[in-house]
Amino acid sequence: MKPIKIGLIGLGVVGAGTFNVLKRNQEEIRRRAGRGIEIAMVAVRNVERARGIVGTDCEVVNDPELVVNHPDIDIVVELIGGYDTAKNLVLKAINNGKHVVTANKALLALHGNEIFAAAQAKGVMVAFEAAVAGGIPIIKALREGLTANRIESVAGIINGTTNFILSEMRDKGLDFATVLKQAQELGYAEADPTFDIEGVDAAHKATIIAAIAFGIPVQFDKAHVEGISSLQAIDIRYAEQLGYRIKLLGITKRTVVDGVEGIELRVHPTLIPAKRLIANVEGAMNAVLVQADAVGATLYYGKGAGAEPTASSVIADLVDITRLATADPEYRVPHLAFQPNQMTNVAILPMSEITTSYYLRVYVKDQLGVMADLTRILADARISIDAVLQKEPGEGETRTDIIMLTHQTQEKNIDAAIGKIEALGAVVGKVVKIRLENLS
Amino acid sequence: MKPIKIGLIGLGVVGAGTFNVLKRNQEEIRRRAGRGIEIAMVAVRNVERARGIVGTDCEVVNDPELVVNHPDIDIVVELIGGYDTAKNLVLKAINNGKHVVTANKALLALHGNEIFAAAQAKGVMVAFEAAVAGGIPIIKALREGLTANRIESVAGIINGTTNFILSEMRDKGLDFATVLKQAQELGYAEADPTFDIEGVDAAHKATIIAAIAFGIPVQFDKAHVEGISSLQAIDIRYAEQLGYRIKLLGITKRTVVDGVEGIELRVHPTLIPAKRLIANVEGAMNAVLVQADAVGATLYYGKGAGAEPTASSVIADLVDITRLATADPEYRVPHLAFQPNQMTNVAILPMSEITTSYYLRVYVKDQLGVMADLTRILADARISIDAVLQKEPGEGETRTDIIMLTHQTQEKNIDAAIGKIEALGAVVGKVVKIRLENLS
Repeated sequence: MKPIKIGLIGLGVVGAGTFNVLKRNQEEIRRRAGRGIEIAMVAVRNVERARGIVGTDCEVVNDPELVVNHPDIDIVVELIGGYDTAKNLVLKAINNGKHVVTANKALLALHGNEIFAAAQAKGVMVAFEAAVAGGIPIIKALREGLTANRIESVAGIINGTTNFILSEMRDKGLDFATVLKQAQELGYAEADPTFDIEGVDAAHKATIIAAIAFGIPVQFDKAHVEGISSLQAIDIRYAEQLGYRIKLLGITKRTVVDGVEGIELRVHPTLIPAKRLIANVEGAMNAVLVQADAVGATLYYGKGAGAEPTASSVIADLVDITRLATADPEYRVPHLAFQPNQMTNVAILPMSEITTSYYLRVYVKDQLGVMADLTRILADARISIDAVLQKEPGEGETRTDIIMLTHQTQEKNIDAAIGKIEALGAVVGKVVKIRLENLS
Repeated sequence: MKPIKIGLIGLGVVGAGTFNVLKRNQEEIRRRAGRGIEIAMVAVRNVERARGIVGTDCEVVNDPELVVNHPDIDIVVELIGGYDTAKNLVLKAINNGKHVVTANKALLALHGNEIFAAAQAKGVMVAFEAAVAGGIPIIKALREGLTANRIESVAGIINGTTNFILSEMRDKGLDFATVLKQAQELGYAEADPTFDIEGVDAAHKATIIAAIAFGIPVQFDKAHVEGISSLQAIDIRYAEQLGYRIKLLGITKRTVVDGVEGIELRVHPTLIPAKRLIANVEGAMNAVLVQADAVGATLYYGKGAGAEPTASSVIADLVDITRLATADPEYRVPHLAFQPNQMTNVAILPMSEITTSYYLRVYVKDQLGVMADLTRILADARISIDAVLQKEPGEGETRTDIIMLTHQTQEKNIDAAIGKIEALGAVVGKVVKIRLENLS
């Protein structure tokens, strides 16, 4: 059977990785796919630079429209990132009856519903394993491997940059700004790191995960997005003394509030027990923990970024399409795991409605009587305290930190209590609040 | 579209779990699969007992031939285990044009080649996610998620019983026999635990993994099979002092011996660095670590046995078949990951040819001069020593243990050196040899 023809748009880190892996492992891949997978055309901004990577193996053009309109191309691989241009090209490719593979989580988290509907109408596939957790086949696991289950929650370390920074902060006791600078020098963080450190990238991925896990549309605008840039080294240290690690988690879970089902969708720094496997995922690695009713907990671990790990997922999608293109489009694997006419409208909850445990750090002028006031406020709010760490003031100081871990309560409840705590005369400044998940 | 009809053979732990999960999650599963999945007939030995589980939801029969010959049944699920009867039924089902789902690792490790060839000839699928690592979708990850890669090695904790026993031995300092008895009382080990504790079950699974990872036929007879029944508590303790855990691993890897490619396929107790994620997989949990050239290391963790975790994989296969049955049988996912005409004949190596590191414990009469003799023997064999642990003799004793960790060498090389060590006058009894993998 003749090779399947690929058009590649973008030849940056992931594009070049995809080209190189396809070339190096072409024999292995052909033996698996039953057909060769051949890059017929590459569209890039800088044709000269691209020639240096692909040599004379395929046509290099400047205009991506040539790829999406090429009559011989079966699958368009979009690896330019961003929103408008990418969306335009992907929709054109779909409209031309081409399958699409993309690593663009931002595009899918914002425009996935429109893109998947267009693909469904045309009977083509849009595959995106590379968009979430890089080389880890987590989309496949959720969408195909766990189909028997009612999925209860997913919690993932799905941004390598922030996990690297948090690992270094803990390991070396350094502050955020210092480690960020090192991460930039090492290439683990971008020159403009905003999307990573403010949790936006993780929230894009969590949004896609939520849709697949629960059969809801992608709704990035409903996600709670909180990064690590204001996290202080001292809280990492206190957490450790209490037996916890702080990780930036993308969390989505089913919950019931006042008898009504809802979905939590949130990205924020999170304390997790140090003995959990996922707490020991260090450096730029990713891991996703899934809780589901039949299988229980499963965890998927690997590299969440980088040229070849991401290429691994891009090419897995190419092989999947090659293997499955002939299946009835009405019944083959649905883009968001559930058949398009079987999606539900369960609402994503505002943060005030979510339920979790909390780490609170209160900076107080003197300890006498303060503890009684704090515990009284929490007791009045029916918030149980799980652990307290009360530090001695440093020599010559009268101020000190009181750290409390609470049992589960609703966010609006803890926020109201924090308001009262901050109004106490002995309390200095703002209370530090970090959410805590037991993941048991 | 009308529901897909299932015939279930066997209603033991996994069969009942499959029935229960299919029933409980039928709505969720139908929303994913696009069709209902309905158990039309169950074949069991004890019809009365089965009625108590399935009620009046489906026909219960005593004769499994009625299932494999039933004209309305699309997929036969074989959950009786064992070899001859299961093989006979599976081949009949295939011959009748039915897809098959099985959790029977023993059957596939021994007769997989024949079964897959029959299925290929008939254009039906034989799915077996539940046969390896229970609820973890590792077959899917290897066969579909990592298709871009040249897989280099797979190392897995793929038997929950032995991992439970080893965790307890380490945690509580107990010996093998004591913990085995407890495991039997808790239901973690069978009345006849031979298949688990002697490594046979893990070797069945490793055999299937090797075939999928490297595109070779299943060859259980070539696997090296070694269990944990002769493992001593003291070696677990010494390993821990050196920074290692002992796990029963199923290992398969590519290697090159004298310029010729070969495959290692072996199950045995293995020292692994305590800081590795997989070293911290405790109790009855399973985990599989895959090394591949593009993605690097990925790890898959979850429950490896039990009614509902295994049912999770059985049902995932049912959904897969429902989704993919219409795809061209020549190109949809091949049973053993590679197209049948693209399998290779790379030989599985005898143990004497494998290369790894070793933990050696030598019991010696007195230490003076012995260490010089030991290191001389190893140096002559060009085996480097990575670490030594030399224990003081107990009070009033003159005999003691010397523990050495070696760098990588071939097994025949270490065995020859051990022969020389055991011939030393100061050495008492046999040298304890446990293989060590760095998994880095």
